[in-house]
Amino acid sequence: MSHSDEGARSAARRVLYDLVAARRDVRAEFSGEPVGADALHRVLAAGHAAPSVGNTMPWDFVVVRDPARLRAFAEHVAGCRADFAAALPPERAETFRTIRVEGIRESGTGIVVTYDPARGGRHVLGRRTVDDTGLFSAVLAIQNMWLAATAEGLGMGWVSFYEEEFLARFVGAAPPVRPIAWLCLGPVTALQEVPDLVRHGWRERRPLADAVHAEVLGGELEQDPAGR
Amino acid sequence: MSHSDEGARSAARRVLYDLVAARRDVRAEFSGEPVGADALHRVLAAGHAAPSVGNTMPWDFVVVRDPARLRAFAEHVAGCRADFAAALPPERAETFRTIRVEGIRESGTGIVVTYDPARGGRHVLGRRTVDDTGLFSAVLAIQNMWLAATAEGLGMGWVSFYEEEFLARFVGAAPPVRPIAWLCLGPVTALQEVPDLVRHGWRERRPLADAVHAEVLGGELEQDPAGR
Repeated sequence: MSHSDEGARSAARRVLYDLVAARRDVRAEFSGEPVGADALHRVLAAGHAAPSVGNTMPWDFVVVRDPARLRAFAEHVAGCRADFAAALPPERAETFRTIRVEGIRESGTGIVVTYDPARGGRHVLGRRTVDDTGLFSAVLAIQNMWLAATAEGLGMGWVSFYEEEFLARFVGAAPPVRPIAWLCLGPVTALQEVPDLVRHGWRERRPLADAVHAEVLGGELEQDPAGR
Repeated sequence: MSHSDEGARSAARRVLYDLVAARRDVRAEFSGEPVGADALHRVLAAGHAAPSVGNTMPWDFVVVRDPARLRAFAEHVAGCRADFAAALPPERAETFRTIRVEGIRESGTGIVVTYDPARGGRHVLGRRTVDDTGLFSAVLAIQNMWLAATAEGLGMGWVSFYEEEFLARFVGAAPPVRPIAWLCLGPVTALQEVPDLVRHGWRERRPLADAVHAEVLGGELEQDPAGR
């Protein structure tokens, strides 16, 4: 590899890892400004460039911006939030009380991601033994969009306090098509440096070392200096 | 926003979108060189920085490098490939014949991603109504790793021709922990510009416009020039 290749690669790494670290799951920081059409297009295009099993590209993106519909979905989510709160032990309920779970109206733009298992016909290359790989493809698209939003100076927040049947009807998704996410997208005043759930004392981060294993779960990964 | 902010953002966008476009699902291009320990660490750290429902970080990464084990997994995959081929209509079988589905031994490094639904206890914030959101979190980590690998000048390939029970035993994952992916990671001679399945005539890409909808599936997205 030439020096200039190494320089370009080092710059690319820095940009990517900065984006990965800066990306937040946004609820409270949406500024209320609209998302520009060009930025929206680039975010969707990044999602659409994700890998997919058998090149099925089994996702669709439904952009929801009608204020009355945003309000209707936010009301549904508020109900699901209340159900969750009611099931918590008192101490957890107290911690949860201060945590926002959505910025549906404030973001002004929802992107509902749907998954269509019928895309690709009967013989999907790579989905024979693990049917979920189709579903997984649509999730890969979401992470591309999340990093794209961060690069655009936008915030994205994944709302999961909803009944899947409600959201399916809401976007006109008939079985076997499944809605798998509601993503809030919008300009933000700033991104938090510490994730909300850490900041509010809900749950600490897990150290990377605990998540990495060699050969089998629990196997210790030897760092080989010669392999660096 | 100041001009310098806009300049930095524009550079970040360019780098990210170049990575998103350059990323390939690699099978045939692994060079056989080992992955450096620092690069491996950064790729895993990028995965570990993914968002997760309730901040559960429900993934684990099992790094497999023992040549005998790589060979054993490759043999299992060869069997699953043969089963898929046998079920295809003759014309599709002929197209499939030329397509590689794995670079397990050539990459020299496998990363098995597992998902632990028990992480986070009984009350996972955001997983009450849609249980799959836990599984989705682990998939988001994979796309972070995929882009990180691309930035590192490495190739990554997701192998899905395996029986989940086989892979669970292989890495010592006992229920409810599920292996969800085998990722080949290694230096590459180059990344293909056109995805393998397009290049080999298996399946064309779908236009972005077909995947984008307004308000409901099938609703046409109006491009608002004023909103740009």
